[in-house]
Amino acid sequence: MIADTRTNAGVDNISSYRKLHVVDQPGDRVMAVATAGNLSVTQTALAMMRDGVHLSVGEDLETLETAPSMFRCAQLLGHALRSVRLSIAPAMEASSLNTSASMLLGGQIAGGPMQLFLIYSQGNFIECGEDTPFLQIGEAKYGKPILVSGLHGQTPLAEAVKLGLISFSTTMRCNVGVGTPLDMLTLRRDMISGDERRIERTDPYFEDLHDRWTRAQAQARAAMPEPPWLSGPGMARRRV
Amino acid sequence: MIADTRTNAGVDNISSYRKLHVVDQPGDRVMAVATAGNLSVTQTALAMMRDGVHLSVGEDLETLETAPSMFRCAQLLGHALRSVRLSIAPAMEASSLNTSASMLLGGQIAGGPMQLFLIYSQGNFIECGEDTPFLQIGEAKYGKPILVSGLHGQTPLAEAVKLGLISFSTTMRCNVGVGTPLDMLTLRRDMISGDERRIERTDPYFEDLHDRWTRAQAQARAAMPEPPWLSGPGMARRRV
Repeated sequence: MIADTRTNAGVDNISSYRKLHVVDQPGDRVMAVATAGNLSVTQTALAMMRDGVHLSVGEDLETLETAPSMFRCAQLLGHALRSVRLSIAPAMEASSLNTSASMLLGGQIAGGPMQLFLIYSQGNFIECGEDTPFLQIGEAKYGKPILVSGLHGQTPLAEAVKLGLISFSTTMRCNVGVGTPLDMLTLRRDMISGDERRIERTDPYFEDLHDRWTRAQAQARAAMPEPPWLSGPGMARRRV
Repeated sequence: MIADTRTNAGVDNISSYRKLHVVDQPGDRVMAVATAGNLSVTQTALAMMRDGVHLSVGEDLETLETAPSMFRCAQLLGHALRSVRLSIAPAMEASSLNTSASMLLGGQIAGGPMQLFLIYSQGNFIECGEDTPFLQIGEAKYGKPILVSGLHGQTPLAEAVKLGLISFSTTMRCNVGVGTPLDMLTLRRDMISGDERRIERTDPYFEDLHDRWTRAQAQARAAMPEPPWLSGPGMARRRV
């Protein structure tokens, strides 16, 4: 899981906030929540989650540290996100402020499967599957083509990280609202322990990857043939 | 200017409509209007435009065939787009239907400059400039990175067409709402005559370009180094 740290309330008000939140209890559970959308909504939902959520009346308070399954964690986060939006949406939307927010929840609890969920503003969620083995939230489109082309169910972890970082690098070039540092958590199935890493703008690997990718793209563009019907200025008037 | 022909009212209702509309009066003017957004809005605005628009009370009816400048054409189209939206938006938005629509207008009238405008739903517009020498409407993000990296003010026409087609090819892979055939108009400054072309899915150049680009991207991905901190399974637990 990779998240950037850039948030903005307009281009004249850009800040850095952590958007990847890790729960790491080695041997018991390791998971991360990545957030997108309205920062006050996602921060409040996560704070509520840390205090504990009652999924329904009469049930115990549960947290990501205590819930028995990843599925239950997704339900709890969905519940927290929906509750926050219900409580603040009327006031915010009256001021034409966008309250939408979404989350990715990924990880594994010992004895259960490794899972990845996308949780929507309304609290419903979907799970990542074999056929589309990645999920994105937030500014997803600029960086999606490389994931669509390169990621499949059997992609090795190091290759997936490489593609994820190229995807972010591409996105950062198109939208100043996405920026370093990036936070990343890599997990391996059944190890129940994560490798957390912060990647700064000057990270040698990330910089080198960006430069190499830029050069490779320029070479790929140059190697493509030009349209035969536009091969010379004399062809310009031909109508087909 | 390149436009696809796919429109949809939900994924279960996909149709083909021409979205590139050419005015070609060789020697006098050549221009094209590309449309995005609500099809009923853009079709009605263009029909209104063909009948003629009064820019303000007391002025003559004007059309794209008679207006004296590209700037005036942009004003007329903006006026038509705004009028249509004002008349139908209340009824449509009451049914939660999106009435937003936008247009690109590009071309040249003899004696005037070659210009490209982006016209917004509200009727206001911007002109393409040297620093960002392209404009996009509609499903713009998937295909934007290649234009950002490859297009500049001095890019030759054949190279620009090549990049535009790769951009569409990338977009079509990510969104089934964008699809062939593509319509394209290429213009050269001061020739006041256009080269219009329809590109089908089986167009030999377009198919070859797509295949070559797919292979070049796979090669570029494979050539990128993997993260040094994930070079072997034994590294997975290292925390930095």
